[in-house]
Amino acid sequence: MSRQSPGTVQQKADPDTVAIRWLGYAVQLLDQRRLPAEEHWLTIEGAAGVAQAIRDMAVRGAPAIGISAAYGVALAARGADADNWQREVRDAIDQLAVSRPTAVNLFWALDRMGGVLDQCQSRKDAVSRLAEAAVAIHREDLAANMAMADLALEAMALEKPCSVLTHCNTGALATGGYGTALGVVRKLHEKRLLKRVYADETRPWLQGARLTAWELVRDDIPVTLNADGAAAAIMAKGDVKWVIVGADRIAANGDVANKIGTYGLAVLARHHKVKFMVVAPYSTVDMSLASGRDIPIEERDGDEICQVGGIRVAPEHVNAFNPVFDVTPADLIDLIVTERGVVHTPEMTGMHPLSD
Amino acid sequence: MSRQSPGTVQQKADPDTVAIRWLGYAVQLLDQRRLPAEEHWLTIEGAAGVAQAIRDMAVRGAPAIGISAAYGVALAARGADADNWQREVRDAIDQLAVSRPTAVNLFWALDRMGGVLDQCQSRKDAVSRLAEAAVAIHREDLAANMAMADLALEAMALEKPCSVLTHCNTGALATGGYGTALGVVRKLHEKRLLKRVYADETRPWLQGARLTAWELVRDDIPVTLNADGAAAAIMAKGDVKWVIVGADRIAANGDVANKIGTYGLAVLARHHKVKFMVVAPYSTVDMSLASGRDIPIEERDGDEICQVGGIRVAPEHVNAFNPVFDVTPADLIDLIVTERGVVHTPEMTGMHPLSD
Repeated sequence: MSRQSPGTVQQKADPDTVAIRWLGYAVQLLDQRRLPAEEHWLTIEGAAGVAQAIRDMAVRGAPAIGISAAYGVALAARGADADNWQREVRDAIDQLAVSRPTAVNLFWALDRMGGVLDQCQSRKDAVSRLAEAAVAIHREDLAANMAMADLALEAMALEKPCSVLTHCNTGALATGGYGTALGVVRKLHEKRLLKRVYADETRPWLQGARLTAWELVRDDIPVTLNADGAAAAIMAKGDVKWVIVGADRIAANGDVANKIGTYGLAVLARHHKVKFMVVAPYSTVDMSLASGRDIPIEERDGDEICQVGGIRVAPEHVNAFNPVFDVTPADLIDLIVTERGVVHTPEMTGMHPLSD
Repeated sequence: MSRQSPGTVQQKADPDTVAIRWLGYAVQLLDQRRLPAEEHWLTIEGAAGVAQAIRDMAVRGAPAIGISAAYGVALAARGADADNWQREVRDAIDQLAVSRPTAVNLFWALDRMGGVLDQCQSRKDAVSRLAEAAVAIHREDLAANMAMADLALEAMALEKPCSVLTHCNTGALATGGYGTALGVVRKLHEKRLLKRVYADETRPWLQGARLTAWELVRDDIPVTLNADGAAAAIMAKGDVKWVIVGADRIAANGDVANKIGTYGLAVLARHHKVKFMVVAPYSTVDMSLASGRDIPIEERDGDEICQVGGIRVAPEHVNAFNPVFDVTPADLIDLIVTERGVVHTPEMTGMHPLSD
């Protein structure tokens, strides 16, 4: 994939300049908690720092988590002791693997880095080969996003511009660049097939308000921000033809774990005869899980619901339920797009048409 | 209604002590924008101040808006010129009528106050009669809430405790006391039929987090706060048997305008075979409107989406869509409860069984 169209990829967006930059001795991450107020880059020189950035959501988005973790492994080799480098890098992989539980790209990237590690002959060899492998993962992700956007537009077969609705952030910030679901939105805009994208603000972390709106305003793509609760009323107006979202993990049967709120959108889309599309790199697919019931769903501290921007909005001592993801069953999904190809009505076939 | 069970009403909660207090020369409103951090009371001596408090959402909730406006009319009489009092009170009614567009209780209360005004012989007569009428509206609302809670429990016919989900705030703060939908939740708890109430935080104003959670924690009723986007996942777990909401206006055919997000909940409830109940005083019913299409839906400044607690969360210059209400069609509603009685499956009969 990485060699598919390197010229185009380079022109569209340098993978080192969106939200993740590789400096060789360190990885720089745009601190997504501080957007849109501030563009602050974290410079991280070790795997522990990368694991913390993932855990604390300085970097988020399933593909971006995978890429960052890969760089974390490369950094572990640089910092490792000459005699004990294999053990130390392996420990770093284990440490990175427990940073977030749901996005499978994390485990996929770490597996791939582990495979490279197994082939390394020396610490020096590992330093260069693991860095190369991480950069490759980064570049391949960007290329995959470009490919998915083309495949999605072909599958949508639009004859005239339409409005779409999206959830959370699946753009350049969440990936190696361009975006998954938001990459499709970008491509629709480039092809003059986008009237407007409605962006759910996406509580509790407000990735839609803070990140998606920030990306789209910068790129001059017509965006309207809405409270998550307004999505149904927006669909009822009839203007929105597609809901387009990303994924954190896709089970073999086509069930999709994604940001909390996605499942509700899928139910609403079906009710309003709006099409529902999931866009995610194939690394998001976990054929080892039969269905969405097997996907571990991260629950975070209820305090994330009880405060906004450090300001307490709920009374003290109130119980809060804060699942980060939900599972959308395959039967509510019209289209799953990966860089390997497109699955129509996944409830019929699951992800098997795309698996090896 | 006001004489139905005055003893009980007085015992349960004094109508002058919940969120609206009548001092004779002024009305005091608990400033709901500052909850839960602070219990700050506004003391307002004229109709203009009441209109502003309604417009700025210091007081909100359809019944509470109607009650406050009635006190505003009473205050207008007190402040009026001896020669021109009728004109001045009429002007105050007009001014109050444009403070919010959707909640029909406002217009109902102002109509009733206007009718009393027409019978007054002098300014002094108006001062006392309009104050009495406003207090009556306040007390009747509380009595109506108690009656609705009993009717709702009878209609629910629960054999064992269940969990319910609610949206926005429909409690003592939104009404003359006890609450509409939240009154039913209170009654379920009193009767040991409530396992847990899930409270949508209700963006953008966070009435669920700020107000509903505050009321329920104070009253020791088991509440779990959730992001609006988590409601679907909560329903999928199977624990929630009823969604219970209030209304700002109900059309003749049973379509219901209520807080943005209500319509989506109704779609989700139907999908999950969860029952959907609307609880509102009969003053919310507007038989002059054939259907929900005729209900004017207030849109507020998009900046309410772009900032939380004064902190900007979205980039500058982003477009935002901020409808305050949506319309739930009668065919998604199982039960509409008013103090006049209950309508089952309103799509069959509309509100006609309860109209005069």
